[in-house]
Amino acid sequence: MYRTHNCGELRLKNVGQPVTLSGWIQKIRNLGAMTFIDLRDRYGITQLVIDDKSDSSLQNLISGLGREFVVKVEGKVIERSSKNSKIPTGEIEVKVDGVTILNPSEIPPFTIEDDTDGGDEYRMRYRYLDLRRNPVKEALMLRHRMAQEVRKYLDSKEFIEVETPVLIKSTPEGARDFVVPSRMNPGEFYALPQSPQTFKQLLMVAGFDKYFQIVKCFRDEDLRADRQPEFTQIDCEMSFVERDDVLSTFEGLTKHLFKFVKGIEFNEPFQKLSYQDAMKYYGSDKPDIRFGMQFVDLTDKFKGKGFVVFDSAEYIGGICATGCASYSRKQIDELTEFIKKPQIGGKGLVYIKMEEDGSIKSSIDKFYTPEDLKAIAIQMNAKKGDLILVMSGDKKKTLTGLCELRLEMGNRLNLRDKNKFAPLWVVDFPLLEWDEEVKRFFAMHHPFTSPNPEDIPLFDTNPKEVRANAYDLVINGVEIGGGSIRIHDKQLQQRMFEVLGFTPEDAEAQFGFLMTAFKFGAPPHGGIAFGFDRLCSLFGGADSIRDYIAFPKNNSGRDVMINSPAPISSEQLKELSIELRKV
Amino acid sequence: MYRTHNCGELRLKNVGQPVTLSGWIQKIRNLGAMTFIDLRDRYGITQLVIDDKSDSSLQNLISGLGREFVVKVEGKVIERSSKNSKIPTGEIEVKVDGVTILNPSEIPPFTIEDDTDGGDEYRMRYRYLDLRRNPVKEALMLRHRMAQEVRKYLDSKEFIEVETPVLIKSTPEGARDFVVPSRMNPGEFYALPQSPQTFKQLLMVAGFDKYFQIVKCFRDEDLRADRQPEFTQIDCEMSFVERDDVLSTFEGLTKHLFKFVKGIEFNEPFQKLSYQDAMKYYGSDKPDIRFGMQFVDLTDKFKGKGFVVFDSAEYIGGICATGCASYSRKQIDELTEFIKKPQIGGKGLVYIKMEEDGSIKSSIDKFYTPEDLKAIAIQMNAKKGDLILVMSGDKKKTLTGLCELRLEMGNRLNLRDKNKFAPLWVVDFPLLEWDEEVKRFFAMHHPFTSPNPEDIPLFDTNPKEVRANAYDLVINGVEIGGGSIRIHDKQLQQRMFEVLGFTPEDAEAQFGFLMTAFKFGAPPHGGIAFGFDRLCSLFGGADSIRDYIAFPKNNSGRDVMINSPAPISSEQLKELSIELRKV
Repeated sequence: MYRTHNCGELRLKNVGQPVTLSGWIQKIRNLGAMTFIDLRDRYGITQLVIDDKSDSSLQNLISGLGREFVVKVEGKVIERSSKNSKIPTGEIEVKVDGVTILNPSEIPPFTIEDDTDGGDEYRMRYRYLDLRRNPVKEALMLRHRMAQEVRKYLDSKEFIEVETPVLIKSTPEGARDFVVPSRMNPGEFYALPQSPQTFKQLLMVAGFDKYFQIVKCFRDEDLRADRQPEFTQIDCEMSFVERDDVLSTFEGLTKHLFKFVKGIEFNEPFQKLSYQDAMKYYGSDKPDIRFGMQFVDLTDKFKGKGFVVFDSAEYIGGICATGCASYSRKQIDELTEFIKKPQIGGKGLVYIKMEEDGSIKSSIDKFYTPEDLKAIAIQMNAKKGDLILVMSGDKKKTLTGLCELRLEMGNRLNLRDKNKFAPLWVVDFPLLEWDEEVKRFFAMHHPFTSPNPEDIPLFDTNPKEVRANAYDLVINGVEIGGGSIRIHDKQLQQRMFEVLGFTPEDAEAQFGFLMTAFKFGAPPHGGIAFGFDRLCSLFGGADSIRDYIAFPKNNSGRDVMINSPAPISSEQLKELSIELRKV
Repeated sequence: MYRTHNCGELRLKNVGQPVTLSGWIQKIRNLGAMTFIDLRDRYGITQLVIDDKSDSSLQNLISGLGREFVVKVEGKVIERSSKNSKIPTGEIEVKVDGVTILNPSEIPPFTIEDDTDGGDEYRMRYRYLDLRRNPVKEALMLRHRMAQEVRKYLDSKEFIEVETPVLIKSTPEGARDFVVPSRMNPGEFYALPQSPQTFKQLLMVAGFDKYFQIVKCFRDEDLRADRQPEFTQIDCEMSFVERDDVLSTFEGLTKHLFKFVKGIEFNEPFQKLSYQDAMKYYGSDKPDIRFGMQFVDLTDKFKGKGFVVFDSAEYIGGICATGCASYSRKQIDELTEFIKKPQIGGKGLVYIKMEEDGSIKSSIDKFYTPEDLKAIAIQMNAKKGDLILVMSGDKKKTLTGLCELRLEMGNRLNLRDKNKFAPLWVVDFPLLEWDEEVKRFFAMHHPFTSPNPEDIPLFDTNPKEVRANAYDLVINGVEIGGGSIRIHDKQLQQRMFEVLGFTPEDAEAQFGFLMTAFKFGAPPHGGIAFGFDRLCSLFGGADSIRDYIAFPKNNSGRDVMINSPAPISSEQLKELSIELRKV
């Protein structure tokens, strides 16, 4: 038997008991008369003590131990003389009678501590050691807890978990599909799903009514800092529902998770914001509403006073930073530099300081009278001590720049507390996006997304204005999930394909089997998918999803631990009826 | 709003309520004065009634409805005059005030009934319609229930669910790996996991202590009748455990599932049988122990009496079929034909009938005296009215033949009741298998399987006799799962590699990163994996796993619904730096 207890469970009430523990050696302190060892397992740390009166073979063995050795220890629980209130086992220690080395360890390439000296490269190569560190272990335990709670909630709401296939079919639009050559069907390929979209819609046609799955999805794209070629979704679909049925169910799920995983209760409904308002007030379709600082459109107020920068601008907008009138020249310059960074591309920053003495100072005093500025201040609802920051130019670009500036100010003012959560539904997205290059509309979501019913007439007059019956859940400025009500009506689907420039033949080739399925009684349906990796990292208060994935890949899609991908043998290629492309 | 209730929930207590239901039209019966419609959804069937006093536009609409139309119905719950006790809603019906066609349906290619006229080909091509049928729907709901209960149990035992990667690395032994070309790493490939074996062992090295996952695995092999290229495992691993710790945990899981999914309680421990005894008494490493009829070795008893068939046989074994002495000549001939089938290959069948009058009749009366036969009968524990069946020949083949004969007799005597479950642990498998062709040992399980500790000395003297610390769970003759205690000791692992004929370089090339991981304090560990598809079909009482998978593939690994695998475009091939092999 390897253990009677784990390393996290012994307490004062166990004093006097003989126990057997197994675990890893976290730390050894040899104080001459006494040697203390911290023994670690998943459940915690227990202090072991060996005194110099122990038999010499035990003392010899102890002196040969090192960090990360795996040992089995027999001993007796005793009360500590100097207690450690920082750990749950801190009131006791185990007086050791015998130690068995279960496995020695080489010196690990980095320290197994909360803060490690291991760089990213080493941590990934020796991920199994990195996973021994508390923060990473806890990230994955949080993920486990969340997965269980997601299922508990959805099961209680009569959702059925159905596994959809991983080996599916590549579509002409699937340029970013991973494909898998079929040995049994030479020259043919499976594809890995970017999402189970079609299958979940087929499950609705099949009458499954409420489906969910926590499922791996795959996308072979150039990876941005925080993307992974394989990622996990909470994927759901419901029949006989309208938008608000879906929203209330998944708002319920989100509240359940906050309550049972984080101990945070949301008693109010989540805020809803239209895509239009999100863009207008935050310059983003995923605004961080932990703080206000909404944009105010100052275009009308500022124009026509002879300031050419503003007069020539399509849009002028401002934000009000409470209490920042005291910002120094240097601070203002920093902000100006910030918005001029190439990835933001702002041209310049105008400020208006609402001084404590009631005066107003600004970088555009030359063009605007104190009365002009006061009127602006009133429109901005700026008070004494506040700082108004104004950007101008092309509307789309300026809104984006102002969005970045607002987030930066949020950071500077500590308004983006990781322990505060502000969920938000963004609704009424545009259905279509015009692609100037190929001169046609694309579906912003996918071609099965239903338009808002009242916007259907606009298909003929102004397709750009048609709003989708689609929705995103955004928390703290992070897009957690999105979905839509789907089109279940054949005529409407045909109309949609026309607008997207599909010929009936194109539509048949790309979506044939789904269209066929829809002929046999498709119910009205809609759904949503949450990015599970992202949701976990948000709950864990981390910026990166990396530590919420047990074995992540790097930005080149490579697993440096197992060194994958890798070449395969020519026999294997031959078996699969493929060869490498000669260059 | 599409519904106030689903089609399975209205009862007498709802009589008088106005309700809205949505669903599919299962059946329409027009009786002139009345029309009855069965409306179906996932939850059940509700009878709708429209009488000829309804307004004519409603009656017109009704007359245009067909099977599988999706409709929304408004009406009032009334008590039925002739109740149907077969369905939960059978005491009420809904008197219809209005109907909205949500979607019409073409006539489905087969009937959506429990027994369908759809052949396998059609059922698979229109799987979304097949899934509307009760038996298939219920199979998937059972699977859902089982998945939730597996997680509930393992979570309660402190197992952590960790997702291991799907895009991993092909190994030289992975001839049956599916591979995935990497676009970002030209000429390199990922592989899909045949199991998460290495990753779960790494999680033990990482100190995760108890891991589980319900996980898709992949094997690109020629598919036998009931295999799928993608299948699902309940995959588990535990640290600091010995064999019986693993067995008791997963016996607990199995009992939990039987209790909460099937309502069957097992109060006794599952039987354990060594591989040797399983072969000796049942001729199989996965015996069906719902019934006895164990083999009796009659070799010594039968030899040396001048019957050349027996005298030349390596092995002679018999089974006793209770109450079958009355079998006719024709029945005995059928059994003889059965064992002579090429896939069994028996040469002949000897019978001994224990007649009711106390006499003994046999097909070998010429060679054996009544006293000889009586002695045999005593050894077989055969009573009046029983039939002894004897096969002989090469030992291995005869055991296999006798196994098939025993199962056949079990079928004929209705001893293999689908509602009876007989779980069994088979333990002490041989560690090594000798391959006569390449003249070397192979690991029966995998090279990390630990030998039984007491057999380690046999490595040097008689490797064939070394038993593995491995185990299978068998229920009703079906192998549900298997696993082993792993080797965590470097020396022992090296010894194992030697026996398997690996050079240190081979071992490094194939298992290098796992061997490296094991240098940093690998704990003693072991695990198990259950075939989830198979477990579900066993619980559902089905012979095939097909209906327990939402979207299965056929025997050529093809999904005939989406027609996958399929060719991909030359642009896509080019992007992936591969081309098709010219033939």
